[in-house]
Amino acid sequence: MPRETKWLEQVQVPTLVIREERVRTNIERMANKARKYGLMFRPHFKTHQSATVGAWFRDYGVERITVSSLEMAAYFAGQGWKDITVAFPLNLREIGRVNQLAETTTLSLLVEDDQTVERLSRQLMFPVTLWIKIDSGAGRTGIAPEEMEKIVRLAKKIRQVPRCTLAGILTHAGHTYHAESKGDIVDRHQQSLAKMTAVRKGLEAAGISEVAVSIGDTPGCTLAREFPGADEIRPGNFAYYDLMQLKLGVCRENDIAVAVACPIVAKHPDRNEVVLYGGAVHLSKEKIEDDAGVSHYGLAAKAQKNGWGKILPGCRVDRISQEHGILRTGKTILSDVHVGEVLMILPVHSCLTANLLRFPAQQIVLQHSQPLLRNLR
Amino acid sequence: MPRETKWLEQVQVPTLVIREERVRTNIERMANKARKYGLMFRPHFKTHQSATVGAWFRDYGVERITVSSLEMAAYFAGQGWKDITVAFPLNLREIGRVNQLAETTTLSLLVEDDQTVERLSRQLMFPVTLWIKIDSGAGRTGIAPEEMEKIVRLAKKIRQVPRCTLAGILTHAGHTYHAESKGDIVDRHQQSLAKMTAVRKGLEAAGISEVAVSIGDTPGCTLAREFPGADEIRPGNFAYYDLMQLKLGVCRENDIAVAVACPIVAKHPDRNEVVLYGGAVHLSKEKIEDDAGVSHYGLAAKAQKNGWGKILPGCRVDRISQEHGILRTGKTILSDVHVGEVLMILPVHSCLTANLLRFPAQQIVLQHSQPLLRNLR
Repeated sequence: MPRETKWLEQVQVPTLVIREERVRTNIERMANKARKYGLMFRPHFKTHQSATVGAWFRDYGVERITVSSLEMAAYFAGQGWKDITVAFPLNLREIGRVNQLAETTTLSLLVEDDQTVERLSRQLMFPVTLWIKIDSGAGRTGIAPEEMEKIVRLAKKIRQVPRCTLAGILTHAGHTYHAESKGDIVDRHQQSLAKMTAVRKGLEAAGISEVAVSIGDTPGCTLAREFPGADEIRPGNFAYYDLMQLKLGVCRENDIAVAVACPIVAKHPDRNEVVLYGGAVHLSKEKIEDDAGVSHYGLAAKAQKNGWGKILPGCRVDRISQEHGILRTGKTILSDVHVGEVLMILPVHSCLTANLLRFPAQQIVLQHSQPLLRNLR
Repeated sequence: MPRETKWLEQVQVPTLVIREERVRTNIERMANKARKYGLMFRPHFKTHQSATVGAWFRDYGVERITVSSLEMAAYFAGQGWKDITVAFPLNLREIGRVNQLAETTTLSLLVEDDQTVERLSRQLMFPVTLWIKIDSGAGRTGIAPEEMEKIVRLAKKIRQVPRCTLAGILTHAGHTYHAESKGDIVDRHQQSLAKMTAVRKGLEAAGISEVAVSIGDTPGCTLAREFPGADEIRPGNFAYYDLMQLKLGVCRENDIAVAVACPIVAKHPDRNEVVLYGGAVHLSKEKIEDDAGVSHYGLAAKAQKNGWGKILPGCRVDRISQEHGILRTGKTILSDVHVGEVLMILPVHSCLTANLLRFPAQQIVLQHSQPLLRNLR
């Protein structure tokens, strides 16, 4: 076997390989876009959950972040982040952690019902900021925009509660992930924003002014060229992107910044299959359909010095079990790969893959070898 | 809200709740079965990955275990387990760990090609036992039983290599998971065993005697009443079982020994939905179809003192994202559950759920309050 490039020699088990230059380019692009449209950029750190990757954001002026759990908030607070939104419905069973965090950070929480605010008011010891979660179309959580009465009542309630400040209204237009085309993503983004603007106006009409609007999804934030009425964006996936975003037309193949280095442990030429060390506990069981309608759990590329090459044609992770990934491929690629070598698997959903491989020992960062792009421009 | 039972008060975030009594009953039943049929019982510890749960097996005479990675082998070796089979194709990129483990434990590894054995022979520093992996029908990995020439060549090769002992032939009849009925599971089990016996005879005819036969899957090991030619069983999932095994008819609802305690964080009566703190990073994205052909990610039960009650009818985890689980339910149940309470979600695939919630801080063990069943019988 030919001698491997230095970083590849370190790969013993399934390992998340992060291309710093691509991540920085992705961050810079989104940071510039936020600046251009006058939006607060509060990236979602659930995608990487990494102190190292998190620190890169500071180079692009990021000081405020989003996370999806109080546990993650505590982790990043420990890394020196001082202004954190937990973009998940407030879980009052964790009031202890809320109070710990609220004492030392600017903590923002999501609420959508009176009773939760009522109970929070009785247990909260330090100031927090509250966002009212609005369901602008995703149908996951939040108050429907049509329920203005409920929204106004909740906003008034929040303004009465000591130690609570109403930040505004927040949504995640997750239905952009189910869009049919890039145009459809932009349409859904605009419709979502229009609903948010209507809610803001409804609140103003009820005497509740200075209401910020926070929106969030990577497809919309990447593709949209208008953000009327928005004050803040909270995309997360864009830092890494993945095959789902590629399929949606949100990113290009070269924007995908992570892949999983998987050792080849067996070959079955009789059925054109390669057995990878890389299964559900590394990639997750997130599936996607390719253009031909065939479901898979990831696509393969060859490892190379700077990370990996182009996606190999006709080569997909066909089945996975706990630790095994079964790669289906053609004769040409099959004769070109060997047991003991490594193949790079581009993930379907990088957030879930990065969560599974979130510990530093499971990751390799490929540092960029050139000056930062921002200095070149 | 009514006062909660003591263990439930500890639940702040999605937590794997393990009912010790059920686990022990499941272990005891399988241990007794192995004894009855004269089989070595080498349970697979990938299901629980827990030092605590692992220790319970010792009470039923278990001294030899199976794991699915060298990392897991190192973990359990650190817990005092001395005889460990890594039931995954040998990954030579981890030769350092192989040597570390082989120095202090009785380590068994799986191989299926000459070159891997050849390379192992050059790097191995301490004795190991090798099993030849046979594909008895699952189509995942291993040599096809028809390829007797290849199997004989590999067996002879192993017997020539210093520090390597040929244990025998090993299979995982994972195709029992795709069976149509309980009868079909037993048929597949018998066919798999018949193939293994044929391979053993083929090896004997080639002068390779004292070849053990090791088999593994929970469906087959649970339902079969004949194990002709088998020497060892390696089931794992049976310790916990789950909705997949329930659907296959392998276990009863009361055999399922784990569920995830999920805080309720929002309610949407307009669409009969409850939002749970419990998503893909807690339950995994493993799906299953219910009897009506509707896919879901788990079923709900109410928490109670001993763990949880019967599965609630018409109540399923319909969608999940990274941290959210959306439970679909009916009006009756909806009016009976409240934000801030906990619902128990029975997992589709307990191995993946337990892997995601594998750290002691993510688990609660409900100790059995009665004398051990084995003492009662």
